[in-house]
Amino acid sequence: MSNTGIFAVIMAGGRGTRFWPASTNARPKQFMDLLGGGTMLQKTAGRFAGITGSDRVLVVTGVSHRRLVKQQLPLLPESNLLQEPVGRNTAACIGWAAETLRRRGYGESIMVVAASDHRIEPVEGFEETVRNAVTLAEKGYLCTIGIPPDYPATGYGYLQTGEEIKPGRLVKSFREKPDEQTASMYLKSGDYLWNSGMFIWKVDSFLEELKNYMPELYMGIQQLPDTTSPSREVYSALQSQSVDYGVMEKTRRAAVVPAMFQWSDIGDWPGAGRAGVSKGSSMLIDSENVLVYDETDRLTVVVGLNNVSVVSTGKALLVMSDSDAQKVREVVSRLEKTRPDLV
Amino acid sequence: MSNTGIFAVIMAGGRGTRFWPASTNARPKQFMDLLGGGTMLQKTAGRFAGITGSDRVLVVTGVSHRRLVKQQLPLLPESNLLQEPVGRNTAACIGWAAETLRRRGYGESIMVVAASDHRIEPVEGFEETVRNAVTLAEKGYLCTIGIPPDYPATGYGYLQTGEEIKPGRLVKSFREKPDEQTASMYLKSGDYLWNSGMFIWKVDSFLEELKNYMPELYMGIQQLPDTTSPSREVYSALQSQSVDYGVMEKTRRAAVVPAMFQWSDIGDWPGAGRAGVSKGSSMLIDSENVLVYDETDRLTVVVGLNNVSVVSTGKALLVMSDSDAQKVREVVSRLEKTRPDLV
Repeated sequence: MSNTGIFAVIMAGGRGTRFWPASTNARPKQFMDLLGGGTMLQKTAGRFAGITGSDRVLVVTGVSHRRLVKQQLPLLPESNLLQEPVGRNTAACIGWAAETLRRRGYGESIMVVAASDHRIEPVEGFEETVRNAVTLAEKGYLCTIGIPPDYPATGYGYLQTGEEIKPGRLVKSFREKPDEQTASMYLKSGDYLWNSGMFIWKVDSFLEELKNYMPELYMGIQQLPDTTSPSREVYSALQSQSVDYGVMEKTRRAAVVPAMFQWSDIGDWPGAGRAGVSKGSSMLIDSENVLVYDETDRLTVVVGLNNVSVVSTGKALLVMSDSDAQKVREVVSRLEKTRPDLV
Repeated sequence: MSNTGIFAVIMAGGRGTRFWPASTNARPKQFMDLLGGGTMLQKTAGRFAGITGSDRVLVVTGVSHRRLVKQQLPLLPESNLLQEPVGRNTAACIGWAAETLRRRGYGESIMVVAASDHRIEPVEGFEETVRNAVTLAEKGYLCTIGIPPDYPATGYGYLQTGEEIKPGRLVKSFREKPDEQTASMYLKSGDYLWNSGMFIWKVDSFLEELKNYMPELYMGIQQLPDTTSPSREVYSALQSQSVDYGVMEKTRRAAVVPAMFQWSDIGDWPGAGRAGVSKGSSMLIDSENVLVYDETDRLTVVVGLNNVSVVSTGKALLVMSDSDAQKVREVVSRLEKTRPDLV
């Protein structure tokens, strides 16, 4: 694969609330070394550097995490670090990155957009998948990567595939997170893939479709000043919407290539546990599916409990039933009022 | 009640294994301030000092905990601190204490025997109950205190009551920990009381019955040298048996007075939780019957779990389903081999 003309855009915003107490405002999960061998941001960037070259990796992050990104990616060119003064969801974030590339003369180039918190292995399968997607992107498609489901997951969105356009398929429809029955049906039919949230397209193709389906946001982005650090006033005026809802569900140029790699969305503690995340010493007695993540130097013993996550830091301890993993947000929102030192 | 002639014998041996990790070899649970306002040993001793006078309180403990007892009970006369070189169960412990009192000329005195890990309130009700028991002990009965059950507990032994002998009753039989069905039957019948493991009797009455039913142990105790600190060699030769099984179940002089106080046996973490034990800051979300005991200065958050105990020290964390509370022993026995620094 030629490196010419491919850029990576890594979205490293977000607070990682669901990974409290290990993830905090001061160090959200994408800056944590959850899996060993580097933080999630470092691994994502390393994966892309092999495809694009390290000077063609862009990172979009919150302005307050600028320092963390520079510390973790010392080779990232200053001009490739886009700093959002406030989060405005993925359509604005990706649109701004695309517009930045166009202004720099790369409208005809391919951009690969990815979150910074996915586990992907092996890298060779990832590279081959991106290569496939690029051939479709070069034809003008807005291409996504679909993950062949191996169980009826209810925690992911799905892509319904349509007509074959080698080496992928058109996307017939985007489906939100299904209930269990629907997920089983999707799995059986063979026509559905998990929506990985990764996108591959020409910069100009995306901006055309953004103009078609989100003209207001498109105009706002056109008017952004030529800086990697826009003011809060100007950036917060942008429409806040996901790129899935705002563009991908509406465009007729949506395509998908199937992933040729193992993928996990490290979205919450139980997901991290399934992906093999673990830290510290533990002893489990009559206990299964237990995640232990301990940043202190202690022994964690779990007796007679299944499907729980036990997360320990120097300041707080979380013991949680995995079926309630979303409620960590409630914990954080309560603590923001009562114990801001802990979030 | 006259103080003349009443002695208290507090059994403060044992390792408190079921209270790991807070309870360790170096500081078993009876030396911990679980309920606030003093350690369990201090509270037990204080309760008795009001009845017997502080010079008539005896403590039997393991030789390795001599220092802890002296530190926590600075007013305890040196001669009242009996140090077991090794635990030989309650019959030997109580028999030795009784023999010690007889040798000092108190064969006609009453001795009240109690464990150091019970929660008892209010002290006035306790004093009145002991007074009742003393009137039976003075007539030669081996008297126990029975707790009127308020739920069909399966974790306690029971006393079946017989003929009335005011202010108590004869004990018809001792019953081991029952299954749930049997416990319900006991509760309904009204004839059963929980066996608190407290005993009140004349020193000579007990020694007579010990001679009758455990003649071998009795002989061994007669031969103990006149010291509060016998050698391991001589003490470990004593028969190891519970006083319930060895004497109380066999004697025809067993009597019981009903407790006029609230009682909990702080026997394991869930029991401690029911008795109101709690330490540290915690936040519970959709969680009930959760014990949090945290010796570190952290926030403990529990989400979506019921009937669990979460115990945190500087060295270890235990997260346990309450129905598996007995398995802490297994944890400790494994750690003895692999991490002796933690037990």
